Amino acid sequence: MTRRELIEQIERKRSVLCVGLDTDLDKIPPHLLEEEDPLFAFNKAIIDATAPYAVAFKPNVAFYEPYGTKGWQALERTIAYLNSNYPEVFTIADAKRGDIGNTSQRYAEAFLKNMDFDSITVAPYMGSDSVEPFLTYENKWVVLLALTSNGGALDFQLTKDLAGVPLYQKVVKHAMRWGTPDQLMFVLGATRTEYLEEVRKVAPEHFFLVPGVGAQGGSLEEVLTKASNNDYGILVNSTRGIIYNGSGHDFAEAAAQAAADLQKEMSSILFK
Amino acid sequence: MTRRELIEQIERKRSVLCVGLDTDLDKIPPHLLEEEDPLFAFNKAIIDATAPYAVAFKPNVAFYEPYGTKGWQALERTIAYLNSNYPEVFTIADAKRGDIGNTSQRYAEAFLKNMDFDSITVAPYMGSDSVEPFLTYENKWVVLLALTSNGGALDFQLTKDLAGVPLYQKVVKHAMRWGTPDQLMFVLGATRTEYLEEVRKVAPEHFFLVPGVGAQGGSLEEVLTKASNNDYGILVNSTRGIIYNGSGHDFAEAAAQAAADLQKEMSSILFK
Repeated sequence: MTRRELIEQIERKRSVLCVGLDTDLDKIPPHLLEEEDPLFAFNKAIIDATAPYAVAFKPNVAFYEPYGTKGWQALERTIAYLNSNYPEVFTIADAKRGDIGNTSQRYAEAFLKNMDFDSITVAPYMGSDSVEPFLTYENKWVVLLALTSNGGALDFQLTKDLAGVPLYQKVVKHAMRWGTPDQLMFVLGATRTEYLEEVRKVAPEHFFLVPGVGAQGGSLEEVLTKASNNDYGILVNSTRGIIYNGSGHDFAEAAAQAAADLQKEMSSILFK
Repeated sequence: MTRRELIEQIERKRSVLCVGLDTDLDKIPPHLLEEEDPLFAFNKAIIDATAPYAVAFKPNVAFYEPYGTKGWQALERTIAYLNSNYPEVFTIADAKRGDIGNTSQRYAEAFLKNMDFDSITVAPYMGSDSVEPFLTYENKWVVLLALTSNGGALDFQLTKDLAGVPLYQKVVKHAMRWGTPDQLMFVLGATRTEYLEEVRKVAPEHFFLVPGVGAQGGSLEEVLTKASNNDYGILVNSTRGIIYNGSGHDFAEAAAQAAADLQKEMSSILFK
Protein backbone atom coordinates (compact mmCIF):
# COMPACT_ATOMS: atom_id res chain seq x y z
CA MET A 1 0.00 0.00 0.00
CA THR A 2 1.23 3.48 -0.81
CA ARG A 3 1.43 6.32 1.69
CA ARG A 4 -1.14 8.21 -0.39
CA GLU A 5 -3.63 5.34 -0.18
CA LEU A 6 -3.14 5.11 3.57
CA ILE A 7 -3.74 8.83 4.03
CA GLU A 8 -6.86 8.75 1.83
CA GLN A 9 -8.24 5.92 3.91
CA ILE A 10 -7.59 7.87 7.11
CA GLU A 11 -9.52 10.81 5.66
CA ARG A 12 -12.39 8.66 4.43
CA LYS A 13 -12.84 6.86 7.75
CA ARG A 14 -11.78 9.82 9.92
CA SER A 15 -9.80 7.31 11.92
CA VAL A 16 -6.22 6.27 12.66
CA LEU A 17 -7.26 3.09 14.43
CA CYS A 18 -5.28 -0.12 14.12
CA VAL A 19 -6.97 -3.20 15.58
CA GLY A 20 -4.59 -5.75 17.08
CA LEU A 21 -5.51 -9.38 16.49
CA ASP A 22 -3.89 -11.10 19.50
CA THR A 23 -6.30 -13.97 19.21
CA ASP A 24 -6.22 -16.36 22.16
CA LEU A 25 -8.34 -19.52 22.44
CA ASP A 26 -8.55 -18.94 26.21
CA LYS A 27 -10.17 -15.55 25.69
CA ILE A 28 -12.44 -15.83 22.68
CA PRO A 29 -16.13 -16.59 23.26
CA PRO A 30 -16.49 -20.30 24.12
CA HIS A 31 -19.11 -20.98 21.44
CA LEU A 32 -16.46 -20.34 18.76
CA LEU A 33 -14.40 -23.31 19.95
CA GLU A 34 -16.88 -25.54 18.09
CA GLU A 35 -15.83 -24.00 14.77
CA GLU A 36 -13.36 -25.85 12.53
CA ASP A 37 -10.92 -22.89 12.78
CA PRO A 38 -11.86 -20.88 15.88
CA LEU A 39 -8.96 -18.43 15.52
CA PHE A 40 -10.01 -17.46 12.01
CA ALA A 41 -13.73 -17.48 12.86
CA PHE A 42 -13.05 -14.98 15.62
CA ASN A 43 -10.81 -12.80 13.44
CA LYS A 44 -13.29 -12.77 10.55
CA ALA A 45 -16.10 -11.62 12.82
CA ILE A 46 -13.90 -8.95 14.44
CA ILE A 47 -12.65 -7.70 11.06
CA ASP A 48 -16.15 -7.47 9.58
CA ALA A 49 -17.43 -5.67 12.66
CA THR A 50 -14.61 -3.16 13.04
CA ALA A 51 -13.41 -2.47 9.47
CA PRO A 52 -15.68 0.59 9.07
CA TYR A 53 -13.81 2.25 11.97
CA ALA A 54 -10.26 0.91 11.48
CA VAL A 55 -7.60 1.74 8.89
CA ALA A 56 -5.25 -1.08 9.88
CA PHE A 57 -5.25 -4.60 11.31
CA LYS A 58 -2.31 -6.10 13.12
CA PRO A 59 -2.25 -9.86 13.74
CA ASN A 60 0.27 -10.64 16.48
CA VAL A 61 2.12 -13.66 15.12
CA ALA A 62 3.06 -14.92 18.60
CA PHE A 63 -0.59 -15.75 19.25
CA TYR A 64 -0.73 -18.11 16.26
CA GLU A 65 2.58 -19.96 16.62
CA PRO A 66 1.65 -21.93 19.78
CA TYR A 67 -1.04 -23.71 17.73
CA GLY A 68 1.53 -25.00 15.22
CA THR A 69 0.38 -25.59 11.64
CA LYS A 70 -3.24 -24.85 12.63
CA GLY A 71 -2.21 -21.50 14.02
CA TRP A 72 -0.16 -20.70 10.94
CA GLN A 73 -3.11 -21.64 8.74
CA ALA A 74 -5.38 -19.34 10.75
CA LEU A 75 -2.87 -16.53 10.24
CA GLU A 76 -2.73 -17.21 6.49
CA ARG A 77 -6.52 -17.29 6.29
CA THR A 78 -6.76 -14.03 8.21
CA ILE A 79 -4.41 -12.10 5.93
CA ALA A 80 -5.99 -13.67 2.81
CA TYR A 81 -9.43 -12.61 4.07
CA LEU A 82 -8.23 -9.07 4.72
CA ASN A 83 -6.55 -8.82 1.31
CA SER A 84 -9.61 -10.16 -0.55
CA ASN A 85 -12.36 -8.34 1.30
CA TYR A 86 -10.73 -5.19 2.64
CA PRO A 87 -7.92 -4.33 0.21
CA GLU A 88 -8.04 -0.73 1.41
CA VAL A 89 -6.91 -1.54 4.97
CA PHE A 90 -3.24 -1.47 5.96
CA THR A 91 -2.06 -4.83 7.28
CA ILE A 92 0.76 -5.29 9.77
CA ALA A 93 2.38 -8.63 10.60
CA ASP A 94 3.39 -8.01 14.20
CA ALA A 95 6.33 -10.39 14.15
CA LYS A 96 9.27 -8.40 15.60
CA ARG A 97 11.67 -10.22 13.26
CA GLY A 98 15.28 -9.29 12.44
CA ASP A 99 18.38 -11.39 11.71
CA ILE A 100 21.48 -11.37 9.48
CA GLY A 101 20.74 -10.35 5.88
CA ASN A 102 20.16 -13.71 4.21
CA THR A 103 17.85 -14.69 7.07
CA SER A 104 15.86 -11.44 7.24
CA GLN A 105 15.37 -11.93 3.51
CA ARG A 106 13.50 -15.18 4.21
CA TYR A 107 11.31 -13.54 6.85
CA ALA A 108 10.53 -10.77 4.35
CA GLU A 109 9.61 -13.38 1.76
CA ALA A 110 7.31 -15.16 4.23
CA PHE A 111 5.39 -12.11 5.37
CA LEU A 112 5.62 -9.45 2.64
CA LYS A 113 5.64 -11.65 -0.46
CA ASN A 114 3.95 -14.97 0.29
CA MET A 115 1.37 -13.82 2.82
CA ASP A 116 1.27 -10.39 1.23
CA PHE A 117 1.10 -8.28 4.38
CA ASP A 118 1.58 -4.54 3.72
CA SER A 119 4.13 -4.36 6.50
CA ILE A 120 5.99 -6.18 9.25
CA THR A 121 7.32 -5.07 12.63
CA VAL A 122 11.11 -5.43 12.83
CA ALA A 123 13.53 -5.28 15.80
CA PRO A 124 16.55 -3.01 15.17
CA TYR A 125 19.17 -4.61 17.43
CA MET A 126 21.14 -6.25 14.59
CA GLY A 127 21.36 -3.04 12.54
CA SER A 128 21.19 -2.05 8.87
CA ASP A 129 21.60 -5.36 7.05
CA SER A 130 19.02 -7.01 9.32
CA VAL A 131 16.40 -4.40 8.33
CA GLU A 132 17.19 -3.62 4.69
CA PRO A 133 15.94 -6.92 3.19
CA PHE A 134 12.45 -5.95 4.38
CA LEU A 135 12.71 -2.63 2.49
CA THR A 136 13.22 -4.16 -0.95
CA TYR A 137 9.55 -4.86 -1.70
CA GLU A 138 7.65 -2.15 -3.55
CA ASN A 139 4.87 -0.49 -1.58
CA LYS A 140 5.64 -2.62 1.46
CA TRP A 141 6.64 -1.18 4.81
CA VAL A 142 8.89 -1.82 7.76
CA VAL A 143 7.48 -0.84 11.15
CA LEU A 144 10.67 -0.56 13.20
CA LEU A 145 10.79 -0.76 16.98
CA ALA A 146 12.06 2.48 18.48
CA LEU A 147 10.59 3.08 21.94
CA THR A 148 8.27 0.33 23.08
CA SER A 149 5.44 0.52 25.61
CA ASN A 150 6.66 -2.10 28.09
CA GLY A 151 8.62 -1.68 31.32
CA GLY A 152 11.69 -3.36 29.86
CA ALA A 153 12.00 -0.50 27.34
CA LEU A 154 13.85 1.32 30.12
CA ASP A 155 16.66 -1.24 30.16
CA PHE A 156 18.34 -0.29 26.89
CA GLN A 157 16.18 1.98 24.70
CA LEU A 158 16.70 5.09 26.84
CA THR A 159 20.44 4.55 27.30
CA LYS A 160 22.29 7.69 26.20
CA ASP A 161 25.44 7.44 24.12
CA LEU A 162 28.55 9.59 24.65
CA ALA A 163 26.88 12.42 22.71
CA GLY A 164 23.79 12.20 24.91
CA VAL A 165 21.56 10.63 22.27
CA PRO A 166 19.29 7.91 23.65
CA LEU A 167 19.31 4.58 21.79
CA TYR A 168 15.71 4.87 20.52
CA GLN A 169 16.59 8.21 18.85
CA LYS A 170 19.75 6.75 17.40
CA VAL A 171 17.66 3.93 15.93
CA VAL A 172 15.28 6.47 14.36
CA LYS A 173 18.13 8.57 12.96
CA HIS A 174 19.99 5.59 11.48
CA ALA A 175 16.86 4.01 10.05
CA MET A 176 15.90 7.22 8.26
CA ARG A 177 18.93 6.56 6.04
CA TRP A 178 17.70 3.04 5.25
CA GLY A 179 14.09 3.82 4.35
CA THR A 180 11.93 6.75 3.23
CA PRO A 181 8.70 7.97 4.88
CA ASP A 182 6.92 6.00 2.13
CA GLN A 183 8.17 2.65 3.45
CA LEU A 184 9.27 3.04 7.05
CA MET A 185 7.28 3.65 10.25
CA PHE A 186 8.40 3.61 13.87
CA VAL A 187 6.87 1.93 16.90
CA LEU A 188 6.59 4.45 19.73
CA GLY A 189 4.71 3.47 22.87
CA ALA A 190 1.84 5.69 24.01
CA THR A 191 2.91 5.15 27.60
CA ARG A 192 5.87 7.46 26.88
CA THR A 193 4.16 10.46 25.26
CA GLU A 194 6.90 12.73 26.60
CA TYR A 195 9.14 11.19 23.96
CA LEU A 196 6.74 11.28 21.03
CA GLU A 197 7.22 14.99 20.42
CA GLU A 198 10.99 14.56 20.44
CA VAL A 199 10.87 11.87 17.77
CA ARG A 200 8.42 13.96 15.75
CA LYS A 201 11.08 16.69 15.58
CA VAL A 202 13.65 14.18 14.32
CA ALA A 203 11.27 12.45 11.91
CA PRO A 204 8.64 14.98 10.81
CA GLU A 205 7.24 12.90 7.96
CA HIS A 206 7.35 9.27 9.12
CA PHE A 207 4.27 7.47 10.39
CA PHE A 208 4.38 6.23 13.99
CA LEU A 209 2.61 3.08 15.11
CA VAL A 210 1.55 3.78 18.67
CA PRO A 211 0.57 0.88 20.94
CA GLY A 212 -0.20 1.20 24.61
CA VAL A 213 -3.40 3.26 24.42
CA GLY A 214 -6.06 1.67 26.62
CA ALA A 215 -5.02 -1.44 28.56
CA GLN A 216 -1.45 -0.18 28.92
CA GLY A 217 -2.54 3.30 30.05
CA GLY A 218 -1.58 5.80 27.30
CA SER A 219 -3.77 8.84 26.52
CA LEU A 220 -5.24 9.03 23.02
CA GLU A 221 -5.66 12.81 23.09
CA GLU A 222 -2.08 13.38 24.19
CA VAL A 223 -0.72 11.09 21.48
CA LEU A 224 -2.71 12.67 18.68
CA THR A 225 -2.09 16.26 19.68
CA LYS A 226 1.60 15.80 20.43
CA ALA A 227 2.70 13.53 17.63
CA SER A 228 0.47 13.84 14.55
CA ASN A 229 1.63 15.74 11.47
CA ASN A 230 -0.01 17.22 8.36
CA ASP A 231 -0.50 13.72 6.93
CA TYR A 232 -1.81 12.52 10.32
CA GLY A 233 1.37 10.45 10.66
CA ILE A 234 0.00 8.19 13.39
CA LEU A 235 -1.62 4.80 13.66
CA VAL A 236 -2.97 4.07 17.13
CA ASN A 237 -3.19 0.41 18.01
CA SER A 238 -5.82 -0.96 20.33
CA THR A 239 -6.23 -4.66 21.02
CA ARG A 240 -7.73 -5.89 24.26
CA GLY A 241 -10.15 -2.96 24.63
CA ILE A 242 -11.69 -3.84 21.28
CA ILE A 243 -11.44 -7.54 20.53
CA TYR A 244 -12.22 -8.69 24.08
CA ASN A 245 -14.80 -6.01 24.85
CA GLY A 246 -17.48 -8.71 24.78
CA SER A 247 -17.27 -12.38 25.68
CA GLY A 248 -20.65 -13.77 24.61
CA HIS A 249 -22.48 -14.23 21.33
CA ASP A 250 -22.48 -10.45 20.88
CA PHE A 251 -18.65 -10.18 20.96
CA ALA A 252 -18.46 -8.73 17.44
CA GLU A 253 -21.06 -6.05 18.17
CA ALA A 254 -19.20 -5.21 21.38
CA ALA A 255 -15.96 -4.91 19.39
CA ALA A 256 -17.68 -2.71 16.80
CA GLN A 257 -18.97 -0.46 19.59
CA ALA A 258 -15.53 -0.09 21.15
CA ALA A 259 -13.95 0.61 17.73
CA ALA A 260 -16.69 3.12 16.88
CA ASP A 261 -16.15 4.92 20.20
CA LEU A 262 -12.41 5.19 19.54
CA GLN A 263 -12.98 6.33 15.95
CA LYS A 264 -15.36 9.03 17.19
CA GLU A 265 -12.80 10.25 19.69
CA MET A 266 -10.06 10.22 17.04
CA SER A 267 -12.27 12.09 14.60
CA SER A 268 -13.09 14.76 17.15
CA ILE A 269 -9.40 15.35 17.88
CA LEU A 270 -7.97 15.10 14.33
CA PHE A 271 -10.82 16.58 12.26
CA LYS A 272 -12.16 19.36 14.46
CA MET B 1 18.56 -30.07 29.11
CA THR B 2 20.71 -29.32 32.13
CA ARG B 3 24.10 -27.68 31.99
CA ARG B 4 25.63 -30.86 33.39
CA GLU B 5 24.13 -32.96 30.58
CA LEU B 6 25.42 -30.51 27.98
CA ILE B 7 28.94 -30.60 29.42
CA GLU B 8 28.91 -34.40 29.60
CA GLN B 9 27.92 -34.57 25.95
CA ILE B 10 30.75 -32.19 25.02
CA GLU B 11 33.22 -34.44 26.82
CA ARG B 12 31.81 -37.60 25.28
CA LYS B 13 31.92 -36.26 21.72
CA ARG B 14 34.99 -34.06 22.25
CA SER B 15 33.10 -31.42 20.31
CA VAL B 16 31.37 -28.07 20.79
CA LEU B 17 29.84 -28.12 17.32
CA CYS B 18 26.36 -26.78 16.66
CA VAL B 19 24.98 -27.55 13.19
CA GLY B 20 22.71 -24.84 11.76
CA LEU B 21 19.72 -26.09 9.80
CA ASP B 22 19.06 -23.17 7.41
CA THR B 23 17.33 -25.49 5.00
CA ASP B 24 16.60 -23.91 1.63
CA LEU B 25 14.76 -25.67 -1.22
CA ASP B 26 16.97 -23.78 -3.69
CA LYS B 27 20.12 -25.25 -2.17
CA ILE B 28 19.31 -28.81 -1.18
CA PRO B 29 20.15 -31.62 -3.63
CA PRO B 30 17.52 -31.63 -6.41
CA HIS B 31 16.65 -35.31 -6.00
CA LEU B 32 15.16 -34.52 -2.58
CA LEU B 33 12.51 -32.29 -4.16
CA GLU B 34 10.64 -35.46 -5.13
CA GLU B 35 10.13 -36.33 -1.45
CA GLU B 36 6.78 -35.56 0.20
CA ASP B 37 8.57 -33.24 2.71
CA PRO B 38 11.94 -32.26 1.18
CA LEU B 39 12.88 -29.91 4.05
CA PHE B 40 12.48 -32.67 6.62
CA ALA B 41 14.08 -35.32 4.39
CA PHE B 42 17.15 -33.12 4.08
CA ASN B 43 17.27 -32.34 7.81
CA LYS B 44 16.85 -35.99 8.80
CA ALA B 45 19.75 -37.05 6.59
CA ILE B 46 21.96 -34.21 7.84
CA ILE B 47 21.12 -34.95 11.47
CA ASP B 48 21.81 -38.68 11.15
CA ALA B 49 25.10 -37.98 9.36
CA THR B 50 26.43 -35.30 11.70
CA ALA B 51 25.04 -36.23 15.14
CA PRO B 52 28.20 -38.19 16.10
CA TYR B 53 30.21 -34.97 15.76
CA ALA B 54 27.71 -32.32 16.93
CA VAL B 55 26.41 -31.50 20.40
CA ALA B 56 23.70 -29.12 19.18
CA PHE B 57 21.37 -28.50 16.23
CA LYS B 58 19.93 -25.10 15.41
CA PRO B 59 17.05 -24.89 12.93
CA ASN B 60 16.77 -21.32 11.65
CA VAL B 61 13.03 -20.64 11.78
CA ALA B 62 13.19 -18.02 9.00
CA PHE B 63 13.98 -20.76 6.50
CA TYR B 64 10.75 -22.63 7.28
CA GLU B 65 8.26 -19.74 7.46
CA PRO B 66 8.31 -18.88 3.72
CA TYR B 67 6.80 -22.32 3.04
CA GLY B 68 3.78 -21.63 5.25
CA THR B 69 2.10 -24.55 6.99
CA LYS B 70 4.33 -27.01 5.11
CA GLY B 71 7.41 -25.22 6.39
CA TRP B 72 6.06 -25.16 9.92
CA GLN B 73 5.30 -28.87 9.70
CA ALA B 74 8.86 -29.58 8.52
CA LEU B 75 10.15 -27.61 11.52
CA GLU B 76 7.88 -29.57 13.89
CA ARG B 77 8.99 -32.86 12.34
CA THR B 78 12.64 -31.86 12.65
CA ILE B 79 12.48 -31.08 16.34
CA ALA B 80 10.33 -34.15 17.02
CA TYR B 81 12.89 -36.29 15.19
CA LEU B 82 15.74 -34.78 17.20
CA ASN B 83 13.91 -35.23 20.50
CA SER B 84 12.98 -38.86 19.77
CA ASN B 85 16.22 -40.07 18.23
CA TYR B 86 18.90 -37.83 19.70
CA PRO B 87 17.62 -36.78 23.14
CA GLU B 88 21.22 -36.05 24.21
CA VAL B 89 21.72 -33.19 21.70
CA PHE B 90 21.00 -29.60 22.65
CA THR B 91 18.37 -28.03 20.38
CA ILE B 92 18.14 -24.33 19.58
CA ALA B 93 15.18 -22.67 17.87
CA ASP B 94 16.94 -19.83 16.08
CA ALA B 95 13.95 -17.51 16.09
CA LYS B 96 15.28 -14.17 17.43
CA ARG B 97 11.95 -13.53 19.17
CA GLY B 98 11.17 -10.92 21.84
CA ASP B 99 8.08 -8.81 22.56
CA ILE B 100 6.10 -7.43 25.51
CA GLY B 101 5.63 -9.94 28.33
CA ASN B 102 2.27 -11.50 27.43
CA THR B 103 3.47 -11.93 23.84
CA SER B 104 6.91 -13.36 24.63
CA GLN B 105 5.02 -15.83 26.81
CA ARG B 106 3.25 -17.15 23.72
CA TYR B 107 6.48 -17.47 21.77
CA ALA B 108 7.97 -19.37 24.73
CA GLU B 109 4.95 -21.66 24.74
CA ALA B 110 5.30 -22.33 21.01
CA PHE B 111 9.00 -23.17 21.01
CA LEU B 112 9.95 -24.35 24.52
CA LYS B 113 6.74 -26.11 25.56
CA ASN B 114 4.85 -27.28 22.47
CA MET B 115 7.77 -28.01 20.14
CA ASP B 116 9.99 -28.81 23.14
CA PHE B 117 13.19 -27.13 21.95
CA ASP B 118 15.86 -26.92 24.67
CA SER B 119 16.41 -23.25 23.90
CA ILE B 120 15.44 -20.27 21.76
CA THR B 121 17.42 -17.27 20.52
CA VAL B 122 15.96 -14.00 21.83
CA ALA B 123 16.58 -10.36 20.86
CA PRO B 124 17.22 -8.08 23.87
CA TYR B 125 15.99 -4.71 22.52
CA MET B 126 12.72 -4.70 24.51
CA GLY B 127 14.42 -5.48 27.83
CA SER B 128 13.72 -7.58 30.91
CA ASP B 129 10.01 -8.38 30.58
CA SER B 130 10.48 -9.40 26.94
CA VAL B 131 13.10 -11.98 27.91
CA GLU B 132 11.90 -13.28 31.29
CA PRO B 133 8.90 -15.30 30.02
CA PHE B 134 11.38 -17.53 28.17
CA LEU B 135 13.24 -18.18 31.45
CA THR B 136 10.29 -19.70 33.30
CA TYR B 137 10.58 -23.21 31.85
CA GLU B 138 12.67 -25.70 33.83
CA ASN B 139 15.86 -26.89 32.11
CA LYS B 140 15.13 -24.65 29.10
CA TRP B 141 17.47 -21.95 27.93
CA VAL B 142 17.49 -18.46 26.46
CA VAL B 143 20.26 -17.75 23.95
CA LEU B 144 20.33 -13.96 24.04
CA LEU B 145 21.79 -11.80 21.28
CA ALA B 146 24.72 -9.76 22.55
CA LEU B 147 27.22 -9.08 19.74
CA THR B 148 26.19 -10.53 16.41
CA SER B 149 28.39 -11.51 13.47
CA ASN B 150 26.89 -9.25 10.79
CA GLY B 151 28.00 -5.82 9.59
CA GLY B 152 24.92 -4.12 11.06
CA ALA B 153 26.12 -5.12 14.52
CA LEU B 154 28.25 -1.97 14.37
CA ASP B 155 25.19 0.30 14.17
CA PHE B 156 24.00 -0.06 17.77
CA GLN B 157 25.67 -2.95 19.61
CA LEU B 158 29.01 -1.22 20.02
CA THR B 159 27.54 2.15 21.03
CA LYS B 160 29.07 3.23 24.34
CA ASP B 161 26.92 4.73 27.07
CA LEU B 162 27.90 7.72 29.23
CA ALA B 163 29.98 5.39 31.43
CA GLY B 164 31.80 4.00 28.39
CA VAL B 165 30.05 0.60 28.43
CA PRO B 166 29.11 -0.66 24.96
CA LEU B 167 25.52 -1.82 24.49
CA TYR B 168 26.40 -5.51 23.99
CA GLN B 169 28.18 -5.54 27.37
CA LYS B 170 25.28 -3.73 29.00
CA VAL B 171 22.97 -6.42 27.60
CA VAL B 172 25.20 -9.15 29.06
CA LYS B 173 25.39 -7.43 32.46
CA HIS B 174 21.65 -6.83 32.70
CA ALA B 175 20.74 -10.29 31.47
CA MET B 176 22.96 -11.93 34.10
CA ARG B 177 20.43 -10.63 36.65
CA TRP B 178 17.56 -12.27 34.75
CA GLY B 179 18.99 -15.74 34.23
CA THR B 180 21.67 -18.03 35.69
CA PRO B 181 24.48 -19.76 33.77
CA ASP B 182 22.22 -22.84 33.89
CA GLN B 183 19.58 -21.24 31.67
CA LEU B 184 21.12 -18.33 29.79
CA MET B 185 23.68 -18.22 26.97
CA PHE B 186 24.87 -15.30 24.84
CA VAL B 187 25.28 -15.01 21.09
CA LEU B 188 28.72 -13.59 20.33
CA GLY B 189 29.91 -13.49 16.73
CA ALA B 190 33.21 -15.18 15.88
CA THR B 191 33.98 -12.34 13.49
CA ARG B 192 34.60 -10.16 16.54
CA THR B 193 36.98 -12.33 18.59
CA GLU B 194 38.58 -9.22 20.07
CA TYR B 195 35.37 -8.81 22.10
CA LEU B 196 34.96 -12.42 23.19
CA GLU B 197 37.63 -12.20 25.88
CA GLU B 198 36.04 -9.06 27.27
CA VAL B 199 32.67 -10.74 27.65
CA ARG B 200 34.33 -13.79 29.19
CA LYS B 201 35.65 -11.54 31.95
CA VAL B 202 32.16 -10.19 32.60
CA ALA B 203 30.43 -13.57 32.32
CA PRO B 204 32.95 -16.26 33.34
CA GLU B 205 30.42 -19.08 33.64
CA HIS B 206 27.88 -18.52 30.87
CA PHE B 207 27.94 -20.49 27.65
CA PHE B 208 28.42 -18.49 24.43
CA LEU B 209 26.88 -19.50 21.13
CA VAL B 210 29.36 -18.41 18.50
CA PRO B 211 28.24 -18.12 14.87
CA GLY B 212 30.41 -16.76 12.09
CA VAL B 213 33.09 -19.44 11.95
CA GLY B 214 33.61 -20.53 8.35
CA ALA B 215 31.49 -18.74 5.71
CA GLN B 216 31.52 -15.51 7.73
CA GLY B 217 35.28 -15.64 8.35
CA GLY B 218 35.86 -16.22 12.08
CA SER B 219 38.77 -18.35 13.35
CA LEU B 220 37.90 -21.49 15.30
CA GLU B 221 41.20 -21.63 17.15
CA GLU B 222 41.02 -18.01 18.24
CA VAL B 223 37.45 -18.42 19.50
CA LEU B 224 38.21 -21.55 21.50
CA THR B 225 41.45 -20.34 23.01
CA LYS B 226 40.17 -16.87 23.85
CA ALA B 227 36.67 -17.58 25.08
CA SER B 228 36.32 -21.09 26.47
CA ASN B 229 36.19 -21.72 30.24
CA ASN B 230 36.61 -24.73 32.55
CA ASP B 231 33.23 -26.09 31.44
CA TYR B 232 34.13 -25.41 27.79
CA GLY B 233 31.49 -22.63 27.80
CA ILE B 234 31.26 -22.39 24.01
CA LEU B 235 29.07 -23.75 21.26
CA VAL B 236 30.42 -23.00 17.79
CA ASN B 237 27.81 -22.88 15.07
CA SER B 238 28.55 -23.86 11.51
CA THR B 239 25.89 -24.00 8.83
CA ARG B 240 26.78 -23.56 5.17
CA GLY B 241 30.20 -25.24 5.46
CA ILE B 242 28.50 -28.39 6.70
CA ILE B 243 24.99 -28.76 5.33
CA TYR B 244 25.83 -27.54 1.80
CA ASN B 245 29.28 -29.16 1.62
CA GLY B 246 27.86 -31.55 -0.98
CA SER B 247 25.11 -31.06 -3.53
CA GLY B 248 24.60 -34.54 -5.01
CA HIS B 249 23.38 -37.87 -3.71
CA ASP B 250 26.33 -37.94 -1.32
CA PHE B 251 25.34 -34.69 0.44
CA ALA B 252 24.95 -36.39 3.83
CA GLU B 253 28.38 -38.05 3.64
CA ALA B 254 29.87 -34.71 2.61
CA ALA B 255 28.19 -33.07 5.62
CA ALA B 256 29.46 -35.81 7.91
CA GLN B 257 32.98 -35.27 6.58
CA ALA B 258 32.84 -31.50 7.18
CA ALA B 259 31.42 -32.03 10.68
CA ALA B 260 34.06 -34.66 11.45
CA ASP B 261 36.82 -32.31 10.31
CA LEU B 262 35.52 -29.54 12.56
CA GLN B 263 35.11 -31.93 15.49
CA LYS B 264 38.69 -33.11 15.05
CA GLU B 265 39.95 -29.55 15.05
CA MET B 266 37.86 -28.73 18.13
CA SER B 267 39.11 -31.81 19.92
CA SER B 268 42.74 -30.97 19.19
CA ILE B 269 42.30 -27.46 20.60
CA LEU B 270 40.09 -28.22 23.62
CA PHE B 271 41.36 -31.65 24.66
CA LYS B 272 45.08 -31.44 24.01
